[in-house]
Amino acid sequence: MDKMIDPALKSWLPVETGSDFPIQNLPFGIFKVGVRSPHAATRIGDTVIDLFTLAEHGFLDGLGINPGVFNYPYLNPFIELGKPIWRSQRKQLFLLFGSENTEARERISDTNDVLYNISLVQMLMPVKVGDYTDFYSSIEHATNVGMMFRDPANALLPNWKHLPVGYHGRSSSIVVSETAIHRPKGQIKPSDSDTPVFGPTNELDFELEMAFITGKKTALGTSVSTVDAEDHIFGMLLFNDLSARDIQRWEYIPLGPFLAKNFGSVVSPWIVTLDALEPFRVPGPVQDPTVLPYLQYTGNHNFDIHLDVLIQAEGQPEYRICQSNYKYMYWNLAQQLAHQTVNGCNIGVGDMYASGTISGPNPDSFGSMLEIAWKGTKPLKMPDGSERSFIHDNDTVIMRGYCEKPGLRLGFGEATTKILPAVL
Amino acid sequence: MDKMIDPALKSWLPVETGSDFPIQNLPFGIFKVGVRSPHAATRIGDTVIDLFTLAEHGFLDGLGINPGVFNYPYLNPFIELGKPIWRSQRKQLFLLFGSENTEARERISDTNDVLYNISLVQMLMPVKVGDYTDFYSSIEHATNVGMMFRDPANALLPNWKHLPVGYHGRSSSIVVSETAIHRPKGQIKPSDSDTPVFGPTNELDFELEMAFITGKKTALGTSVSTVDAEDHIFGMLLFNDLSARDIQRWEYIPLGPFLAKNFGSVVSPWIVTLDALEPFRVPGPVQDPTVLPYLQYTGNHNFDIHLDVLIQAEGQPEYRICQSNYKYMYWNLAQQLAHQTVNGCNIGVGDMYASGTISGPNPDSFGSMLEIAWKGTKPLKMPDGSERSFIHDNDTVIMRGYCEKPGLRLGFGEATTKILPAVL
Repeated sequence: MDKMIDPALKSWLPVETGSDFPIQNLPFGIFKVGVRSPHAATRIGDTVIDLFTLAEHGFLDGLGINPGVFNYPYLNPFIELGKPIWRSQRKQLFLLFGSENTEARERISDTNDVLYNISLVQMLMPVKVGDYTDFYSSIEHATNVGMMFRDPANALLPNWKHLPVGYHGRSSSIVVSETAIHRPKGQIKPSDSDTPVFGPTNELDFELEMAFITGKKTALGTSVSTVDAEDHIFGMLLFNDLSARDIQRWEYIPLGPFLAKNFGSVVSPWIVTLDALEPFRVPGPVQDPTVLPYLQYTGNHNFDIHLDVLIQAEGQPEYRICQSNYKYMYWNLAQQLAHQTVNGCNIGVGDMYASGTISGPNPDSFGSMLEIAWKGTKPLKMPDGSERSFIHDNDTVIMRGYCEKPGLRLGFGEATTKILPAVL
Repeated sequence: MDKMIDPALKSWLPVETGSDFPIQNLPFGIFKVGVRSPHAATRIGDTVIDLFTLAEHGFLDGLGINPGVFNYPYLNPFIELGKPIWRSQRKQLFLLFGSENTEARERISDTNDVLYNISLVQMLMPVKVGDYTDFYSSIEHATNVGMMFRDPANALLPNWKHLPVGYHGRSSSIVVSETAIHRPKGQIKPSDSDTPVFGPTNELDFELEMAFITGKKTALGTSVSTVDAEDHIFGMLLFNDLSARDIQRWEYIPLGPFLAKNFGSVVSPWIVTLDALEPFRVPGPVQDPTVLPYLQYTGNHNFDIHLDVLIQAEGQPEYRICQSNYKYMYWNLAQQLAHQTVNGCNIGVGDMYASGTISGPNPDSFGSMLEIAWKGTKPLKMPDGSERSFIHDNDTVIMRGYCEKPGLRLGFGEATTKILPAVL
């Protein structure tokens, strides 16, 4: 790794203390200003850098990148160029925006339409998602759910420690942060009835997740090993897997969640690359029993990413209700991707793979209202005196994620969504 | 319906007796000749009609169709134009290819690159699938599975008659007919062991299904009623939902099928429109108990489509092992789409919705090997003396579908796939 991260590097663009976006991050997103067509961008501090305009003016010359890949409403054409290009571009951005490069500073500052303050742009969905998988890879979450709904003494199902349980979800309803979502309606079976009723969910929940995005496609019939998995992964983002628990309870046997999940999932707008996350690798939990050979791995594929969930009731301040960490994942992303493809399933550029709810060991690290309020038996007290067993109409759910160590902090920004009343 | 079907109409293109493709069909597909880029096409008899070349030469002028929509590797841009355009184009094709139009016959026959014999072209995947849903809507299939694996006296789960059970599947691995599929590998838990082993599936199965394709997108948060559902549906095709039963048994609780299904699904190359299927509407089964209002419907949304499954062992003739019919569906396509969207889930152009295995009431109409051989207890005897509980390596599975009434027959062609040995 040739200087993919230099903690000492500073940018000539301003970066406030505590920002998620130092020059070490250089995440990728899609933005729009006014009625102009969307462009790809990166970000340093609160400055959005238009990569199309930058490339059009020759600042990325010599990297073998056609500027046109940045003049597109999704990052997919850029991502398709592959890891060597992601990396050479990263190095070029270090060079252009490093504090020592006074010449680039002058030339870029003199060029119109390259630099925008984040407050002036609209962030859009960063990728066109081909297929979306949702895993279930936090042992704390799976155990909590098993204790609540199945046998507390045998909370984990027999397959759980042998394979990263997952299922396919809906791509179309994955939306970018700040998209409001209406409370979904559906069939709900009251506990005192044999037949369902129809109406808005009474048990709307968030699930604190992260997702990775693949950046290299494979052919049907081929597999990706745990060794090669990270070569196929472009980066990660925050993922709120909104869930309607009462709809799910009635519909999910025997084929899994469907309408309980596909009414909306919310992602953060900036994709943080694995190169940026490199300094934050940590070992994962010991896996016992030993997993089958195709799931075995070497090296560290967990990442120390602090995760916060906050709820903001209408007219109230934000209130943090969960502090978790991506490092708790029992199954890591290399194992997830190896499992996804071991049967020959082909993957594409822009495909998304969510982690499943990331709960930690303590009640203040549980990643869903279901667990925090323990199936409604321990309602959460909010600062305004109201209680929450699930999400209320007009609540805003905010997820944040960041990595921190002495001298270096970088993060994911936010995945935020306001819940609107059901459409009647 | 102004002559969307005239059973008496003949084409000046030859159509053999028993062909699936009389002029009343006019299905849509994507084809390729040599190294030329793929174009959209329709078909009469064994003649593939290049819609791009036809449009480029002005034969579709006045319909408001940019010929470019046909110069694309998927039908999506054409489908997006909407039902009025699908219909005006259908009428124009009747006019151009009707036997009375000797002038069009001469002009089209004199134009290069419009007409191709089917044997000279390669058919490709007809649509880019955004999202794919698999329903479970045959009561005979759900009952058979429930009898085998759950309680024979209570074979149907409590939710089954209240909602069209469904789940999201993998879009990327849906491939066109004649694509060979390798036997998938995965985790299998032997019945005499507590832990899984890894290897090729021993229980590879087909599932006889049909799928419809949506042609009109909706916004997140909106729903499609059963009344409006068919305005959103472009057409239908045959769908083989290949399944690995042993992998499924171990992985599917609690979140549904994943690797047991996503290694490959096979569709027929021609999309038959609902307008072509109009003469074959039939009433569906009586639904008791009464369904919730959003699932109630008027009119006939079932279709009388004969379905055959054949297996061709290596070097052997085809052997028919199942005769079923799409009319058996308990839940119809209008109900499926209303259910899919009732929670606000958005749909797109090219999305695919498979029916679930279409079994009929008798053993010779069961739509999977699982049911035909009744979980291996009644192996199927093949003409060559071999037996089948599941599909063998080098077996070719062939699905055919057609509608027939006095004076009119039209069909779907084939969804065919050869099973290759596992990749070792």
